[in-house]
Amino acid sequence: MDANRRVLIAHLPAGALSPGDFALDEVPVRSPDEGEVVVETAAFTIGAGQRAGLQGSASYAGAPVAGRVMDGTGVGRVVASAADGVPEGTLVRGQLGWQSHPTVKAAHVEPVPEGTDPADALGPLGTNGLTAYFGLHDVGRPEAGQTAVVSAAAGSVGHLVGQMARNLGARVVGVAGTDDKCRLLVDDLGFDAAVNHRDPDFRTRFKEATPDRIHVYFDNTGGDILGSALFRMATHGRIVCCGAVSQYDTAAPDPSPRGIPGLLVNNRVRMEGFLLFDYADRYAEGRAQMAEWLAAGQLQPLATEFEGLESAGQAFVELLAGRTVGTTIVRVGPRRAELT
Amino acid sequence: MDANRRVLIAHLPAGALSPGDFALDEVPVRSPDEGEVVVETAAFTIGAGQRAGLQGSASYAGAPVAGRVMDGTGVGRVVASAADGVPEGTLVRGQLGWQSHPTVKAAHVEPVPEGTDPADALGPLGTNGLTAYFGLHDVGRPEAGQTAVVSAAAGSVGHLVGQMARNLGARVVGVAGTDDKCRLLVDDLGFDAAVNHRDPDFRTRFKEATPDRIHVYFDNTGGDILGSALFRMATHGRIVCCGAVSQYDTAAPDPSPRGIPGLLVNNRVRMEGFLLFDYADRYAEGRAQMAEWLAAGQLQPLATEFEGLESAGQAFVELLAGRTVGTTIVRVGPRRAELT
Repeated sequence: MDANRRVLIAHLPAGALSPGDFALDEVPVRSPDEGEVVVETAAFTIGAGQRAGLQGSASYAGAPVAGRVMDGTGVGRVVASAADGVPEGTLVRGQLGWQSHPTVKAAHVEPVPEGTDPADALGPLGTNGLTAYFGLHDVGRPEAGQTAVVSAAAGSVGHLVGQMARNLGARVVGVAGTDDKCRLLVDDLGFDAAVNHRDPDFRTRFKEATPDRIHVYFDNTGGDILGSALFRMATHGRIVCCGAVSQYDTAAPDPSPRGIPGLLVNNRVRMEGFLLFDYADRYAEGRAQMAEWLAAGQLQPLATEFEGLESAGQAFVELLAGRTVGTTIVRVGPRRAELT
Repeated sequence: MDANRRVLIAHLPAGALSPGDFALDEVPVRSPDEGEVVVETAAFTIGAGQRAGLQGSASYAGAPVAGRVMDGTGVGRVVASAADGVPEGTLVRGQLGWQSHPTVKAAHVEPVPEGTDPADALGPLGTNGLTAYFGLHDVGRPEAGQTAVVSAAAGSVGHLVGQMARNLGARVVGVAGTDDKCRLLVDDLGFDAAVNHRDPDFRTRFKEATPDRIHVYFDNTGGDILGSALFRMATHGRIVCCGAVSQYDTAAPDPSPRGIPGLLVNNRVRMEGFLLFDYADRYAEGRAQMAEWLAAGQLQPLATEFEGLESAGQAFVELLAGRTVGTTIVRVGPRRAELT
């Protein structure tokens, strides 16, 4: 068996993340103990929220530690098994980390149907899709005809949120960081409108794009975009606090948006933070809905793919700089053709 | 009939409100048109939230105008009626304003049972009680054994919120602005603990008073107290945004509290603004519960009373300075003995 090639966080970034904050090493593959499996990683996904886990203060993911293997959800095939029920050859998804041959507890991985593209398994049918589903469905709850706005709208969660909201009958407005992304959202993904938050006239454009104000704002960014949305909320509007990507990759986060709590009171707005793992007992429900929309052509997943473990640090930097669209995927092992 | 004596807002305050911002005048009582009644005001209540209505920017109450009669909910007796169903002699509650003999639409007042003390009609059975009830019951939803915190805890809404939360089985912590108020809350009203936010060690004391963190925070103040509570919220905690009294009586409100949206996400906290009038079709339900607790001795209403229309401006200043407890009442007309 190959060595286990790994990407470590070499040091916690002081300001913006750079590829030099990561280091590659190679260790022998660890033989599985009872209940463990060795997985050959095919691909893993990087989420912007992982940047929060590298900040000096502890996030929900716990305090960060330099020198550890980077976390990450991946897809791969079991190549050695000491676990009942997860035989060699099983295609699985789980917390594999940024490494080529992790040895993990079988209880921490779940089977993926043969033939599933890793990009789908990690995107619409993975953490990103479930985050979009429960955040929108359970927290945001858009009604037909209402206006739903999503920030980081071309991102891993955002591009799915917007299409889901459209499927639920909402008018959908995306906020993204380039004109190209805005065009993609409207032309290819069926968003009703999209606004570039780097446009000097952003506030005016945003207002024009939300004439009925905002009933559901799915916030992936925090910061100024959240601040603008707060001033455009409709009475009884809901803000889904999913992430704050604008605040992760910096040593000096922005202050909180203005007008809290006054704006919430005047417009009776609900602002609610959520984390996916609270919905763990309902993942099957979320996956079933996503799979149905995928099969019906009502959900078009986007992914930006990088090749090889050595590209992972750069992939993370590109993601945080807003130069990826959809799910950010790093392909590691055998290509799709060999997997399926 | 007497003249109608009135308190006008003479000019919108530039900084802190002062009694000189008000003016008294006297006009003939206006005869009621069809569907109107003339009420002889017995008492009215002043709420800190009314200060927001005097700020330069429009609040939910609409843009402020100098020269108008101050708004206010009052109790009084109908002394002339041109309305079916509301005969002379009826004891009523409604938007009477700060005036002795308003002429108002009968549809805008509601009968109050004979014998009700105006302080009760305006406190636990009035706007304050209903605000406490719906804010706690529908938005905050404390469960038995959970920790509920209320700010401005000795105030018109706060002292009722705390007792209601205790009646619902919660552990109740009040935040108030003097040691005397804190003693009152614990010794007389049955709060489990109370913390003075002007104590230099407030943050430490607040932490000690909330060892299980905060499941429901009923926020009447905004500002620094909201900021401290945000850092003490339990997982899935709820913040009821009811008011922001710390921010009303100033031309330079504080910035928003730190950590939004990050703290909301990490602890999956819900923050929700509410206004009482959204619950107008359920006032009877709220009043019935409050009346039941009052009758059972499970709710002790507090009031600070001022005498005469000419004291109203000063009463408002005292209220905003934190020198009143419970419902702030201005007695205007005949005393209770004569009313009942």
